[in-house]
Amino acid sequence: MESFFKVKRPEEVFRIIDQFGPLGEETIPLEETLGRVLSRDVTSSEDLPCFPRSVMDGYAVRAKDTFGASESLPALLEVTGEVLMGQIPKMVVREGQAVRIPTGGMLPEGADGVVMVEYCHLLDETTLEASRAISPLENVIQPGDDFKAGATVLKRGHRLRPQDLGVMAGLGQSDVSVYRRPRVAIISTGDEIVPIEDPARPGQVRDINRYTLGAFCHRLGAESVYSGLCLDDFDSLKEMVEKSLRLADTVWISGGSSVGTKDLTLKIFETVKDFELLVHGISISPGKPTIIGRSGPIPVIGLPGHVASALVVAEIFLTRLITRISGQLDSFGGLQTQVEAELTQNIESASGREDYIRVRLFRDGKTLFAQPVFGKSGLISTLVEADGLIKIGMNTEGLYQGQKVTVVFL
Amino acid sequence: MESFFKVKRPEEVFRIIDQFGPLGEETIPLEETLGRVLSRDVTSSEDLPCFPRSVMDGYAVRAKDTFGASESLPALLEVTGEVLMGQIPKMVVREGQAVRIPTGGMLPEGADGVVMVEYCHLLDETTLEASRAISPLENVIQPGDDFKAGATVLKRGHRLRPQDLGVMAGLGQSDVSVYRRPRVAIISTGDEIVPIEDPARPGQVRDINRYTLGAFCHRLGAESVYSGLCLDDFDSLKEMVEKSLRLADTVWISGGSSVGTKDLTLKIFETVKDFELLVHGISISPGKPTIIGRSGPIPVIGLPGHVASALVVAEIFLTRLITRISGQLDSFGGLQTQVEAELTQNIESASGREDYIRVRLFRDGKTLFAQPVFGKSGLISTLVEADGLIKIGMNTEGLYQGQKVTVVFL
Repeated sequence: MESFFKVKRPEEVFRIIDQFGPLGEETIPLEETLGRVLSRDVTSSEDLPCFPRSVMDGYAVRAKDTFGASESLPALLEVTGEVLMGQIPKMVVREGQAVRIPTGGMLPEGADGVVMVEYCHLLDETTLEASRAISPLENVIQPGDDFKAGATVLKRGHRLRPQDLGVMAGLGQSDVSVYRRPRVAIISTGDEIVPIEDPARPGQVRDINRYTLGAFCHRLGAESVYSGLCLDDFDSLKEMVEKSLRLADTVWISGGSSVGTKDLTLKIFETVKDFELLVHGISISPGKPTIIGRSGPIPVIGLPGHVASALVVAEIFLTRLITRISGQLDSFGGLQTQVEAELTQNIESASGREDYIRVRLFRDGKTLFAQPVFGKSGLISTLVEADGLIKIGMNTEGLYQGQKVTVVFL
Repeated sequence: MESFFKVKRPEEVFRIIDQFGPLGEETIPLEETLGRVLSRDVTSSEDLPCFPRSVMDGYAVRAKDTFGASESLPALLEVTGEVLMGQIPKMVVREGQAVRIPTGGMLPEGADGVVMVEYCHLLDETTLEASRAISPLENVIQPGDDFKAGATVLKRGHRLRPQDLGVMAGLGQSDVSVYRRPRVAIISTGDEIVPIEDPARPGQVRDINRYTLGAFCHRLGAESVYSGLCLDDFDSLKEMVEKSLRLADTVWISGGSSVGTKDLTLKIFETVKDFELLVHGISISPGKPTIIGRSGPIPVIGLPGHVASALVVAEIFLTRLITRISGQLDSFGGLQTQVEAELTQNIESASGREDYIRVRLFRDGKTLFAQPVFGKSGLISTLVEADGLIKIGMNTEGLYQGQKVTVVFL
């Protein structure tokens, strides 16, 4: 079977990942929706605002009574009352009249604009000089200026930010339909891996990947619902994978996917229900021995055992997977954050693959620099020192000192 | 009192905010530490790794046995065994010998390097041709290469990322000392504000700020511990502020801080225990009528009532405040994310203040563009349309079409 599969280019892998669709939906209280993805459009059930509001402190007037007014020739107006916050004003503004109004107050009938308080001077309690002309609707928001009744306010597939919760609050929408959070099962395999509570004897290492990948999921708004640690043993790993498929929306195994070792992950994936192998190897470094398949609708992933490789693959490809199954459609939802920086030195690269280089960021004056963090691929410390990743493209022989690079935060 | 206070420049405000220090610490399980800030350095209790490891699949050898080896003249070695994952190898590699070793396997005694499997060819079960020379320590990680025992692995003040959890897992640190999460009390005031469950009659608006500012806090890893909605009434607002000061690490009131209206927030702040007024007005737009003070060690904030102004002030100044009281010291902890884009049109600005302009991002070909979202300051829809903010500096008259701008995500 392996012989049918060639190492795939990253763009092919992205297209394959894009075949996975969003999960089911649920309805949750507005205050819990930050970072969740809308499963339906939010429409305005009413005009927002539902009444004409002043955006300034000042006096509500008929605009034409101010036409021609200036500092040398102010308009004289009769003050007939005051608008109170939260109340429907009972007075009517007639020709030559003005009514005191606060920011956010409802414009009284008859008035069609507001003169800012800065341009008003009270001669006595009822006589006002307005030293500036306003045009009709000046300093006023009309009903529906924000959203007309029936308008689409937020679109399905949008990942919700604070201001989006704000506008739903404004519309009185206290329950919101969102896609379910992806539930990820994370399994570490390897005869050398021990739980973190245990002493690591020579030859053994603690289960780093479970915590790294679990936190990676949490950062993307996904849940890690099941974590296991398994010896490189066919039967016990198979049982763990089957249990995970019942509990989770996607199953990730790290370790066991290198062709050089036992390739146990693929052998077990091949036994699960309706398995289809989609990717066996990606032309990137680090992270080449990655497996992507599906068990019916459920994406199953085999990641490299070493945490630096596993995290790079997760950052580049599984961010995309989580985005897809989260139902997110907008591009600036802030899942992956990046910054531009200037490279401190030349970096060579083999062509025919994408290289991902860890970099440390630092600022010198106004310039942000990206400095490669080199080190043997087996080291964890390089990941901790790094602030992000830069990509060297497939058909590029390297990058040059002084070149602008895009750093994706790790 | 007001007359002593002049509108402050943003840099002065930042310096004032920087006087607030971190909160107390607590110890929590490793798996809950994502996004939390270390309250103590994490040091390595042991060498990591604690044994010499191979970073490749191949054969462990004495490097000098391969010196001079090439494809045309391979070194001939005797295969004497295999290293198993997780086990301490019992054999010793002597002159002329080789031992099969997997990636991550422990280097056996006597060996000082690993020949990659790609350069090895088995003539029979015990005879190996190695077609490439290796230098001593090639393809091997030494004990302590990641971290020596006693080394500082992560520094106090660091906001934890997935790989940081990974390295603590590797060190067996299952409990971690972090600063407490800031607890924020959020109070909305205004006679026109109604709870979101209520119908908004003409003249009234629903409580948008509570949800927007609450979500803003959550995104920064802070908790909103108490939220209230209050009429512009001295006694009830004072009671609510005093309750908040007992429960929270910082108290934020939106509304009531505009000089044009009743300025109730400041009057109430002046009655609380050990109050000190630090900022009364900032030279920015929107957001000028902002109050920053302290009640003893507790920062108390008066925000503009309109959500767009309140959110801009929060993004620019309260992100900094949350960062400070969270104890975060590193600069690339990813609290605030930004991107460079090209401006689509000229924007004018008044000098003598910083202007924050909402922009929408879009991509055309490879270029990312920032398009200003204009609209009356009272509109919420502009916040929803916008992806981020750009700044027009204090002494700048504007920005030009085609200019590169930094967009801070909203």
